[in-house]
Amino acid sequence: MELLKNKIIEEGKVLSDTVLKVDSFLNHQVDPKLMKQVGEEFANKFKSAGITKILTIESSGIAPATMTGLELDVPVVFARKRKSLTLTDHLYSAEVYSFTKKTSNEISVSKDFLHEDDIVLVMDDFLANGQAALGLLEIAKQAKTTVIGVGIVIEKGFQFGGKQLRDKGIRVESLAIVESMSDGKVTFKEEARI
Amino acid sequence: MELLKNKIIEEGKVLSDTVLKVDSFLNHQVDPKLMKQVGEEFANKFKSAGITKILTIESSGIAPATMTGLELDVPVVFARKRKSLTLTDHLYSAEVYSFTKKTSNEISVSKDFLHEDDIVLVMDDFLANGQAALGLLEIAKQAKTTVIGVGIVIEKGFQFGGKQLRDKGIRVESLAIVESMSDGKVTFKEEARI
Repeated sequence: MELLKNKIIEEGKVLSDTVLKVDSFLNHQVDPKLMKQVGEEFANKFKSAGITKILTIESSGIAPATMTGLELDVPVVFARKRKSLTLTDHLYSAEVYSFTKKTSNEISVSKDFLHEDDIVLVMDDFLANGQAALGLLEIAKQAKTTVIGVGIVIEKGFQFGGKQLRDKGIRVESLAIVESMSDGKVTFKEEARI
Repeated sequence: MELLKNKIIEEGKVLSDTVLKVDSFLNHQVDPKLMKQVGEEFANKFKSAGITKILTIESSGIAPATMTGLELDVPVVFARKRKSLTLTDHLYSAEVYSFTKKTSNEISVSKDFLHEDDIVLVMDDFLANGQAALGLLEIAKQAKTTVIGVGIVIEKGFQFGGKQLRDKGIRVESLAIVESMSDGKVTFKEEARI
């Protein structure tokens, strides 16, 4: 997605060879128009898949997932990282290790919102080591849903999450795949031309 | 907003005289079409206010705020409840006590995304005791922005947050004001008829 790649080039901050900060339009400040276009792009990729539900994780997955849900006309469920007092133990849960924050979180989704007949698109803002996506896939599996694919806004192609998911036979669609960030410069994996 | 009130009546779960659970469309599962309409409603109320930025808080504020940002064509900033390792101390911060979770959180916003010339709409999913809204207002004040008002999806009119804000002279627009939830039944404050 050219518009997204341009935004990453213009506004992304390369903090190291592995850390890309896109706080100005995705992770802290959100660009609603860009998110709308992100939603349209995902909807276009997955429109014939019969999706009934989008499963994402708080907080940065919510904006792109909600815009995708708007386009596909399906509800969005966001997994919670902490247990709320108003949620009971009526939950699907999975452990997610964050390499950035160096902590493990339990993520959970109420059993009310994922069902055996759901066809699920898993979404997240970033794919790096794949831990969040694997946690969401685990939850989708516990609920016996059918996962149609994983939609990612920005994939760090030099980390192993994407390969790990694709090696499992999962369809992964990333709108921008960063191939390298050496010398502070972002280069993208070129899309295959037909 | 009739559509929202109907949704609350149909899907809201009254867990006690003070706890209303709207997990099926706002706080855990999100209804993107409803959020779009919520965004249109806020945009309509605040369209002539010259807003340049929406300030909300993760996680449940993000979906309605992003849809409002789309309609008003302005960026959305969501305050974070925990410090990220990729955020430095270049932050505005405030303490927010949660009566539901019985814990105090520091919320913070990067100084990059709020500026003295910003005209800010503060938004949140719920207004009960007003702690989150007050924290956001404190952050907006630290950044020397102009706050034009507070936009709330569901206000619990029987708790003191709304009165406290309005007594300070702040314009508070709530799309549904719950007047009472006694006997498990939600009743709304009627809007003033002209």
